[in-house]
Amino acid sequence: MLDILSPADRDFLAAVTAFVESDVLPHAHRREGAGYPADLFARMRELGLFSACTRDLRTYALAIEELARGWLSLLPIVNAHSSSVWACKFHATAAQRRQWLPWLLAGDQIAALALTEQQGGTDLAHLESTAEPVAGRWHITASKSLITHAGHADLMLILVRTDPDSALAHRGLSLFLLSQGEWAVDREIPKLGSRGIETCEISVDTIVPADRLIGEVPGRGFAQAMDVLEVGRIAVAAAAIGVGRRALWNAIEYARERATASGLVAELPTARQQLGSAAAQLAAAKALALSAADTKQRGGRHDLEASAAKVAAASAALTAALTAMEIGGGWAYVEDLEFARLLRDSALFIAGEGSNSVLTSLVGGRLVNAEPSLSWI
Amino acid sequence: MLDILSPADRDFLAAVTAFVESDVLPHAHRREGAGYPADLFARMRELGLFSACTRDLRTYALAIEELARGWLSLLPIVNAHSSSVWACKFHATAAQRRQWLPWLLAGDQIAALALTEQQGGTDLAHLESTAEPVAGRWHITASKSLITHAGHADLMLILVRTDPDSALAHRGLSLFLLSQGEWAVDREIPKLGSRGIETCEISVDTIVPADRLIGEVPGRGFAQAMDVLEVGRIAVAAAAIGVGRRALWNAIEYARERATASGLVAELPTARQQLGSAAAQLAAAKALALSAADTKQRGGRHDLEASAAKVAAASAALTAALTAMEIGGGWAYVEDLEFARLLRDSALFIAGEGSNSVLTSLVGGRLVNAEPSLSWI
Amino acid sequence: MLDILSPADRDFLAAVTAFVESDVLPHAHRREGAGYPADLFARMRELGLFSACTRDLRTYALAIEELARGWLSLLPIVNAHSSSVWACKFHATAAQRRQWLPWLLAGDQIAALALTEQQGGTDLAHLESTAEPVAGRWHITASKSLITHAGHADLMLILVRTDPDSALAHRGLSLFLLSQGEWAVDREIPKLGSRGIETCEISVDTIVPADRLIGEVPGRGFAQAMDVLEVGRIAVAAAAIGVGRRALWNAIEYARERATASGLVAELPTARQQLGSAAAQLAAAKALALSAADTKQRGGRHDLEASAAKVAAASAALTAALTAMEIGGGWAYVEDLEFARLLRDSALFIAGEGSNSVLTSLVGGRLVNAEPSLSWI
Amino acid sequence: MLDILSPADRDFLAAVTAFVESDVLPHAHRREGAGYPADLFARMRELGLFSACTRDLRTYALAIEELARGWLSLLPIVNAHSSSVWACKFHATAAQRRQWLPWLLAGDQIAALALTEQQGGTDLAHLESTAEPVAGRWHITASKSLITHAGHADLMLILVRTDPDSALAHRGLSLFLLSQGEWAVDREIPKLGSRGIETCEISVDTIVPADRLIGEVPGRGFAQAMDVLEVGRIAVAAAAIGVGRRALWNAIEYARERATASGLVAELPTARQQLGSAAAQLAAAKALALSAADTKQRGGRHDLEASAAKVAAASAALTAALTAMEIGGGWAYVEDLEFARLLRDSALFIAGEGSNSVLTSLVGGRLVNAEPSLSWI
Repeated sequence: MLDILSPADRDFLAAVTAFVESDVLPHAHRREGAGYPADLFARMRELGLFSACTRDLRTYALAIEELARGWLSLLPIVNAHSSSVWACKFHATAAQRRQWLPWLLAGDQIAALALTEQQGGTDLAHLESTAEPVAGRWHITASKSLITHAGHADLMLILVRTDPDSALAHRGLSLFLLSQGEWAVDREIPKLGSRGIETCEISVDTIVPADRLIGEVPGRGFAQAMDVLEVGRIAVAAAAIGVGRRALWNAIEYARERATASGLVAELPTARQQLGSAAAQLAAAKALALSAADTKQRGGRHDLEASAAKVAAASAALTAALTAMEIGGGWAYVEDLEFARLLRDSALFIAGEGSNSVLTSLVGGRLVNAEPSLSWI
Repeated sequence: MLDILSPADRDFLAAVTAFVESDVLPHAHRREGAGYPADLFARMRELGLFSACTRDLRTYALAIEELARGWLSLLPIVNAHSSSVWACKFHATAAQRRQWLPWLLAGDQIAALALTEQQGGTDLAHLESTAEPVAGRWHITASKSLITHAGHADLMLILVRTDPDSALAHRGLSLFLLSQGEWAVDREIPKLGSRGIETCEISVDTIVPADRLIGEVPGRGFAQAMDVLEVGRIAVAAAAIGVGRRALWNAIEYARERATASGLVAELPTARQQLGSAAAQLAAAKALALSAADTKQRGGRHDLEASAAKVAAASAALTAALTAMEIGGGWAYVEDLEFARLLRDSALFIAGEGSNSVLTSLVGGRLVNAEPSLSWI
Repeated sequence: MLDILSPADRDFLAAVTAFVESDVLPHAHRREGAGYPADLFARMRELGLFSACTRDLRTYALAIEELARGWLSLLPIVNAHSSSVWACKFHATAAQRRQWLPWLLAGDQIAALALTEQQGGTDLAHLESTAEPVAGRWHITASKSLITHAGHADLMLILVRTDPDSALAHRGLSLFLLSQGEWAVDREIPKLGSRGIETCEISVDTIVPADRLIGEVPGRGFAQAMDVLEVGRIAVAAAAIGVGRRALWNAIEYARERATASGLVAELPTARQQLGSAAAQLAAAKALALSAADTKQRGGRHDLEASAAKVAAASAALTAALTAMEIGGGWAYVEDLEFARLLRDSALFIAGEGSNSVLTSLVGGRLVNAEPSLSWI
Repeated sequence: MLDILSPADRDFLAAVTAFVESDVLPHAHRREGAGYPADLFARMRELGLFSACTRDLRTYALAIEELARGWLSLLPIVNAHSSSVWACKFHATAAQRRQWLPWLLAGDQIAALALTEQQGGTDLAHLESTAEPVAGRWHITASKSLITHAGHADLMLILVRTDPDSALAHRGLSLFLLSQGEWAVDREIPKLGSRGIETCEISVDTIVPADRLIGEVPGRGFAQAMDVLEVGRIAVAAAAIGVGRRALWNAIEYARERATASGLVAELPTARQQLGSAAAQLAAAKALALSAADTKQRGGRHDLEASAAKVAAASAALTAALTAMEIGGGWAYVEDLEFARLLRDSALFIAGEGSNSVLTSLVGGRLVNAEPSLSWI
């Protein structure tokens, strides 16, 4: 499958895999909770991971998958940053692109993404943060929650309400770019997994120049955010697959070494069947994620395919992590090994990033008004 | 995704879809049990479906999927015939290819495939039918079971033992080509589904010329059969997806028309979520089947990917058929509608064609001796 | 667990088991489609199965389970008849009880149950059949569908609308008892499974005496039907468990005899694990069904427990039938063996009798307005 | 169902529920990681929880379920202690019973249970710790892992090898009772969940009097441990159900308060269906656990029923915790709420205490040599 990609993309992926194998995987477990991994981000900058989203989207998805296979905690930063790159590249003015895009692509400035609020959750149409025009500038007053990397990011793309009177709630929103110092971190939020990177509650009370608004006019933030999230959904699916693959291979490595009265665990027919079953589910989800990436790359409609890919990937990752727990037995419950962390990490995809329940409802809702299409279902 | 394919392949698929929509789908339910569908096979011959396996394998898989979406009963014939084409094209002598391949590709002669026996089942290494050399010819003595299309096929590719003394049981097998009249149908076997086409027990007691042996020398039948079955596995996965898609869309069509006290079934959030969930699973399996086809087309190792695709497709088809049953409720249990037939058809893929249990064990067994590979898992 | 029951009930169950083992199980497969099993019903009358619903409800559930283990087709008749017994015993007038109950309990007259209509389906509140008062009698005009045993039953309990103007649709319904000849069978409906007994569309256009109305006054039919269906739900759960247990043991029997290259299927660790997993699921569903029966017997609120038992039992039966299909492989798809019939039979419980989707929604809807209760969840 | 129990048992359970509701549930989340909950154990002693295993086993199971619903971390201590009570009551000498049982039943001395070793894991037959006779005393040399409560327990029941030459590995084992100070805690082991109580690696190098051996003669430790673990398995099933019920109700409480654009989460049909489905699975597992407890109480063979109950309960608890995660969405991933902890806690039952994979294999292995039994499956 990789031979479809350009030689440059293949070289890029080989470099990512080599980095993951040598610098990430062997240390991920120990590093969780051991402080901000600045050294790894420096290496990722050199490798070009902060501009990977401008490559063929399959290449981007595979790079994300490899990173997540190494350590999920590296992922949210790349995904948020890529969303900002995407927003800047496709929705910003020419002047903004000239000003910000080089930095963003080089990874010299890493951007976070601030959408979620305490009350609305993922229901962006009802967010309460605002930006008010004040003498040709914007006064931004915002409280956001579940904001990844807010403690270290250089920039932050933030969604706020610019028209409180819009009849359609989601019409009155706009995206702005903030610079470090323009937001305050109120609290780091303890999480089940993905613990290598901070997730925060933040507040903003600042006045920014007019050109911080993404695009020419306010009121387009919802559509811009939706566009960015859809690319992000493919990345989320790829990340889930990466975590699932690591859970699978962690179990295989354990099974090769662990003896039972009936021989190595890897020799047990029941263990083999469970591993094979998890692998088949992961492989299917991966194929769909890559297909959705390819569809998007070709300019086709990919939203349902991307949502379905996220659902399949989240289920497959969870299956892999739970299968691994069964194979590891009592030792898998101990945080010394990787089993438990990989279960904690895989659960991110069930709960967050558009829950499976929300996305299957979305897909089903569209299907009942559609016709069969050989190109996807 | 279809735009990856050549224009000729896209035209071919469009013709298949048109045929399925106009000639197959509307009549499939009524025709089951109403006799051999010779008219449909004639149209399929015109459309080039009996040589479809020589196209890009993704195109072949998509054509199979469409046919199965129309009526599963059309499938086993195409799949068995394609296996014979494949065997002839890649394993026959030049003389055999010259003699048989034109007829096979034109669909003028349709071939069945006789592997399974009562005792050994799918365990081909232990089959008991034999071919003995007799004065430069072969005396074939065989009993085979679960042979699809044996009552109407023109040719039959049959696997028998030519060396009873081989230390390795599977080394002593060979493939032969039989012509109509050289086998006897002993019984038609009643089946749970796929009832539009006969499945038979047959017996053979005949002497055939030396050149009926596929290839130059005897003893290569097991490897030839395995090669042929692996291409067939992709077709089986595609067929399962086709049945699953029909089950999904049959449910959607029903849901759009069926009123409940709370409105149309299609408006019920729970029904939408169930449909969306089944669709996501089908889409993932389909993507994997197409990826396996592409890998095979490019000459890569595809056996595990194809096995995983069959497993994912069988599960997805069953999920779709069962989801449909829940949505149809009591009426789905009545054979007036298509729900029940689609469940019966979808169950083929659980039981047969390499059960999921066998194939996941196979995949898992290989994984414990492998390393992670970005190209599949 | 059986030792909780009275000696009389244990004797009764032992007799049922002996009957199932000797007269039902060995012939069920052959008899499906071979005509109305009048001889078996005669034996069931002698055994007291038509009055079993007046015993301890756990005993009733266990008797149902055993019958269904033998042959599901025997079940719907007993269940419909028991519903009529129940309706007569708890909702009829004293005169009606004196007149009908002895016959019903003896099984001299077997009653069918006519609720479902083509349009409304299981949505009883919207049924369209009517009974109009005509000179101290009732003129019943009805079309009913999915009516089991309508071709042979002696009596029929039928739900119709007596007050077309009731503001609350379900308030205007009443139950009547019809006698053979007062309904016409319009069509036998072909079904996926449970094929040993007819299911029909019927029509009624008849005038009956006033005392055919169940109870003193009209308008109580919906509540009466709901009460009867709730007892029936426990029986449905028990029947599902019976089918599931037979599917499990059919697979075990096959596994003990079928050789593979690695030994008997029964020796394969993967087969054992699959069988054990299906058994655990069945055992849990069975325990819940018996617990619901016990709760009802003690006069407690059992509706959610009974619904949950039906859901768990339907899932477990399907799991058992599908697990069996995997273990049987290609041969399981052949209707010579019992695998396929047991899958067809087990699917009844997914589609019908309150689909799992409907019942889980019901349970969930109640839970969000309840508090935890140590006595069930 | 509770009305089956004696008035004394019902009063006991009511007291446990009251304690859980007032003292445990409201504080559990905050207390995890906040030190040894000595105050709660004192209250549990007063309530009689350390002798609860001598009550009707259904009462014991329900008490365990309630405690686990409050806080899983309280459970392993009660379970290990109860195992010691059980071992003492049924396997100790009369003198030992007189000496230890009063203290154990009063909870004045709380006992831990030391079976698992680093190498053998749950494969007790291959453990390497030893006790050697030395001048009428025993010299115990042991390394044990995954030992709960080892940092605070007063006593410890430990399984070691007394006959290194026994042909049957499990014949040479014996149980001993150690007193605080006779073992050393080498390390506290970090765990995925159940974090309110320590789990340790310990080592023993001590000489104890002859009467520390449980029973009259050495060599019976394996059978004694198996007996104790089987009672423990019911308790483990009950604990899983308790955690699952809390996960369910935590989700319900959240759903009642959390607004979405379409209304409260509790009003969403999809959420209701998911909650109902999880509840049905939990209810079935609970019924089976209580049935197994009842069977054991009556002296029947309950090992397969108990194993099946553990499997069903572990699956149900996990389903409930994962369903809750989906309903909670992104917020469920935050450790501020209980969702994440309940998922971590529920995973204990997948990995440990006899993994589902091991136990389903056990059940299946027995089934293939058994006959159907109306009393369980």
